[in-house]
Amino acid sequence: MAKPAPWRLEIDRYPFVKTMATRFRDLDIMGHVNNVAMAGIFETARVHFHRHLGRHPQDQGVRWLIASVHVEYLQEAHFPDEVTVGCSIAKIGNTSWTIYAAAFQNGECVATCDCVVVTHGPGGRRVVDGALRTAMEANRFREG
Amino acid sequence: MAKPAPWRLEIDRYPFVKTMATRFRDLDIMGHVNNVAMAGIFETARVHFHRHLGRHPQDQGVRWLIASVHVEYLQEAHFPDEVTVGCSIAKIGNTSWTIYAAAFQNGECVATCDCVVVTHGPGGRRVVDGALRTAMEANRFREG
Amino acid sequence: MAKPAPWRLEIDRYPFVKTMATRFRDLDIMGHVNNVAMAGIFETARVHFHRHLGRHPQDQGVRWLIASVHVEYLQEAHFPDEVTVGCSIAKIGNTSWTIYAAAFQNGECVATCDCVVVTHGPGGRRVVDGALRTAMEANRFREG
Amino acid sequence: MAKPAPWRLEIDRYPFVKTMATRFRDLDIMGHVNNVAMAGIFETARVHFHRHLGRHPQDQGVRWLIASVHVEYLQEAHFPDEVTVGCSIAKIGNTSWTIYAAAFQNGECVATCDCVVVTHGPGGRRVVDGALRTAMEANRFREG
Repeated sequence: MAKPAPWRLEIDRYPFVKTMATRFRDLDIMGHVNNVAMAGIFETARVHFHRHLGRHPQDQGVRWLIASVHVEYLQEAHFPDEVTVGCSIAKIGNTSWTIYAAAFQNGECVATCDCVVVTHGPGGRRVVDGALRTAMEANRFREG
Repeated sequence: MAKPAPWRLEIDRYPFVKTMATRFRDLDIMGHVNNVAMAGIFETARVHFHRHLGRHPQDQGVRWLIASVHVEYLQEAHFPDEVTVGCSIAKIGNTSWTIYAAAFQNGECVATCDCVVVTHGPGGRRVVDGALRTAMEANRFREG
Repeated sequence: MAKPAPWRLEIDRYPFVKTMATRFRDLDIMGHVNNVAMAGIFETARVHFHRHLGRHPQDQGVRWLIASVHVEYLQEAHFPDEVTVGCSIAKIGNTSWTIYAAAFQNGECVATCDCVVVTHGPGGRRVVDGALRTAMEANRFREG
Repeated sequence: MAKPAPWRLEIDRYPFVKTMATRFRDLDIMGHVNNVAMAGIFETARVHFHRHLGRHPQDQGVRWLIASVHVEYLQEAHFPDEVTVGCSIAKIGNTSWTIYAAAFQNGECVATCDCVVVTHGPGGRRVVDGALRTAMEANRFREG
């Protein structure tokens, strides 16, 4: 697992940004934001990002499932400082997509997250429809 | 992110195994064990595995930090069924190591987890000492 | 908030008992099982207890909502030791019931929990039906 | 457990107010903010309130332990709406104090929380010192 490329640590690459408070329960016995808690912060940002894309899976009778999550922890994060998470679309497949995200605290990138989401309907995997694809294209990771 | 190799889904490859109850709070709105909750289940198994290795970072004035976590979600997991997690050492570096783990429910592999741990002391990264290295060698992933 | 009566700390008073593993994420910065984490352990035991009562709200198109939770923390609890939770029915109302629970670690009562559950249907509160009432009567707190 | 008095539901009674985002993981299978998650939101507000009081237990070599938490759930709360928590001091004892808190969403009180905190030092319970007592007096619940 190679370290994330330097451009993954630049907030301007991410078209969607969400700032969230940390919580006391994010801390673990080591006194920093726990790695699992950080995964939960990325998840909440991702849900906001999906809402921003304007498509809700329930509206179409499909389910969006998390196929994989890969987090690189670069710096220790702390409570009660806020975390700002940038989100973007990295790849759009036939029935899945990859989200690139990065979390920042006090101006520094503390973690990156790559997440693959797949879409399932009653008859198995479902193709990403045109409206969702258009919304995703408009929220691509800015390769620069 | 390629799918895990088929041998990663075989419980016998993992020298250390821990079975844990799921909790109601592991469920999310979709009615399955949430992906972040599963990361927490892997974390608890990992802590048990580290204790099994017989070295405690506090005893030596060092900290073990999570550098990266990569989870592949293969099947939906459910409450209240138990989860059995297999853990193993995949790579041993100079100041870090990689843990391969896999979670099983009702005999099926529901997720795999690759985790990189680094060791830090007051003066920065610390070398993995001989006693820990020996314990890790005895708990290698069984390549078969 | 008066301390719980001494008989609340006796495991034999509770007709239903469930033992669960603690998790690393239960710990907080103080190194003990966090009070909110303990509330989550009580919740999981309560869900098991409700299943044991043999009635599932979904089967009847109703929802069971938590109206109140009152936890008294008596001793610090620790990871990785297991927690055993005893559950019982304390009061049965027209549309609600009270569960008395207590959590034990290494033979000592670490916390008690009083929880009021209410039952709601599409038209508002729903009366506790006969089958559920009978199951609850059989799982009363043993007043001794 | 009687319902909270009507004045407990008025935000102006609480001298300290903190607004926080909800998270996706706050939701449970019923689609609302889970009762344990709400206890965690109260906890974070309480930690902010304690910081606002200007005394940190670590500075004095003491521990503040949660002796009891009593939450009344009045309305279902939802994601992604924010929660505003009001905090106040209700009682000041010799070695403990009671915090009255209430959580509001979209202008409505969704839950109240009474919490007893005790202070412990190496030799057992510790008396609330004068500086802390003065800070607490300035943050009393406004009886009106």
